[in-house]
Amino acid sequence: MIYLDNSATTKPCDSAVKNINDALTENWGNPSSLYSFGVEAESTVNSARATIAETLNCREDEVIFLSGGTEANNLALLGTAESLKRRGRRIVSTSVEHPSVLNTLRHLESSGFEVTYIRPERDGHIDKDKVTAAITDDTILVSMMLTNNETGCIFPVREVAEYIKDNKLPAVVHCDAVQAFGKMPIDIESLGVDLLSASGHKIHASKGIGFLYKSRKLNLKPIIFGGNQESGLRSGTECVPLIAGLEGAIKELTVKDTLQRIQKLHDYAVERLLATGIVKINSPSDSHLPFVLNISVPGYRSETMLHFLESKGIFVSSGSACSKGKGSHVLNEMGLNRDIIDSALRISFSRYNTEADIDELVLCLEEMSQKLRKSKH
Amino acid sequence: MIYLDNSATTKPCDSAVKNINDALTENWGNPSSLYSFGVEAESTVNSARATIAETLNCREDEVIFLSGGTEANNLALLGTAESLKRRGRRIVSTSVEHPSVLNTLRHLESSGFEVTYIRPERDGHIDKDKVTAAITDDTILVSMMLTNNETGCIFPVREVAEYIKDNKLPAVVHCDAVQAFGKMPIDIESLGVDLLSASGHKIHASKGIGFLYKSRKLNLKPIIFGGNQESGLRSGTECVPLIAGLEGAIKELTVKDTLQRIQKLHDYAVERLLATGIVKINSPSDSHLPFVLNISVPGYRSETMLHFLESKGIFVSSGSACSKGKGSHVLNEMGLNRDIIDSALRISFSRYNTEADIDELVLCLEEMSQKLRKSKH
Repeated sequence: MIYLDNSATTKPCDSAVKNINDALTENWGNPSSLYSFGVEAESTVNSARATIAETLNCREDEVIFLSGGTEANNLALLGTAESLKRRGRRIVSTSVEHPSVLNTLRHLESSGFEVTYIRPERDGHIDKDKVTAAITDDTILVSMMLTNNETGCIFPVREVAEYIKDNKLPAVVHCDAVQAFGKMPIDIESLGVDLLSASGHKIHASKGIGFLYKSRKLNLKPIIFGGNQESGLRSGTECVPLIAGLEGAIKELTVKDTLQRIQKLHDYAVERLLATGIVKINSPSDSHLPFVLNISVPGYRSETMLHFLESKGIFVSSGSACSKGKGSHVLNEMGLNRDIIDSALRISFSRYNTEADIDELVLCLEEMSQKLRKSKH
Repeated sequence: MIYLDNSATTKPCDSAVKNINDALTENWGNPSSLYSFGVEAESTVNSARATIAETLNCREDEVIFLSGGTEANNLALLGTAESLKRRGRRIVSTSVEHPSVLNTLRHLESSGFEVTYIRPERDGHIDKDKVTAAITDDTILVSMMLTNNETGCIFPVREVAEYIKDNKLPAVVHCDAVQAFGKMPIDIESLGVDLLSASGHKIHASKGIGFLYKSRKLNLKPIIFGGNQESGLRSGTECVPLIAGLEGAIKELTVKDTLQRIQKLHDYAVERLLATGIVKINSPSDSHLPFVLNISVPGYRSETMLHFLESKGIFVSSGSACSKGKGSHVLNEMGLNRDIIDSALRISFSRYNTEADIDELVLCLEEMSQKLRKSKH
């Protein structure tokens, strides 16, 4: 199996699996229990919290564990909106966010908030000036992903946060870093955001775990109520096994080294794919996280290619996993032509991929172009 | 270690651990991915769904996976309130629900809903007539737990649901079955509820997984937005490993046999504890799930006893884990005396407990009464 869909999910690494197993079989107490066996479970949770805080350069009490990136985005947006609704109801975001941001914003619109969606340029990038132009004195929240899940474009989060700070604007800045955390260095202080979402299963931990960084200066309202775990911001017994697994996965990361290696792999892939003469590259070459490479093979429908490649043991995606078969809203917003959108494939790498995987992909795409008839538009 | 705090959390069973491990190491695809490797993950989720549907005697599309009992209770209450708020704003519940129900209801009160809390009788039971008397034509929701987490009392959920049906009242019935599911037979049809919450880690699955049964006739609004997994009611990549683990745990249950065995264990415990002459039993003898036994040892503070027992390798609780050290709100609502409340211990059993565990507990309580001075009130 050649797995090239690492933006959809990743293979849990050995440390993650081991930590999960240990927590299930040995350290299975309830972190809220008062006796030592509960305190041990609580220590496991807090150790993971400290590891994340160190990675991000933030405080331990600024890390909230929850069930994944989707819940992190929901808590960030709904919690901020609820907390600040008396101050204003304007929100700025982009039109190419993940559905867990877009659909949450739509829900907020239905309850009286006003959202401005900045559209991307043709190369997938977001123009910083278009974002800042939309931010006013009564904008309560700006939400922008750090890297796009379909193109890999790095969005100007730092620049926008800086603009807000420089102009003493009151807007809270949220960043969906689900596709960036663990793949590029992130320093909360230099990024300048108030909220940042991350997910475990994109970085070789398990599905079902994620966290939200929340600045201690920010007042956030919870969206799930109960026993007041996670400083009252996320009730429910902490998922100790998956939290332990997340710490294991983070400790296995070598962010800078892997980023360099993936950049080389990405460049090799671009070179080999372009050499086939049938592939167009949709991802831009600048300000781009090399873990994601969006391509099109005009004349072939995404899903047809996906299944042809699958028959060869190669797994890629026709868009994001969360949009399940629908044409990419991201490529659409970029204003690409229909035949580019309908023939798009997302290739996404992890540290487990090699040049041999790319060679095999190229071989199979060439075979496909000889075997399959082009579709007509 | 003698673990007698199984209402706080339980040891994951072998099947749960094995299934989780398999999903992490072999079947780690994204259920939303279109290729076979994703479809396999989706099948795992649907197999678990079918197992639960069979256990509850409901339809597969009536089972929604989410992150645990707390989220299930939140989705049930907030989702119903949001869906029916135009029809009415009255809710009926009890004053001894779990914090994940009570604090969610308080949140609803702060946004304009009106909640009537029925208080328990002195023996911990809820008088069915007091509940039905509070239900009116414009009550949109009745929420009552099936068994209380601190006393084990079985609440008249079936009787109340029947009353609502017989009187053609429009109220939706929600049941928090976190402490009952997998411990007593539950048939959705004969119970007559529209919503039922359950949790994995109370029945030897992992923390971080639970489900909500939702009648297909009911229109519920989601509380987390995104990729529209779980029929749009719970966005976010499905936590395949913990869902697989939950199925493993459910398949290992022998509900009726275990219930009989635990009843014997419970009765043995009551007999041995009463024979010490220092113990009072707070749980009632009728309509009571024997997995939970609430006792008091007047003259000794709960926390002192908890730590004394801990030093002997015995783990019990001074209340529910979620109330972390605060005096029990349940015993308080029952109107028990201060010295009974302050000296309460919750003993809760699982199929892994034996009579030898009880013998050891009794021995240690007797030793304690000889070694520790009584506290004064």
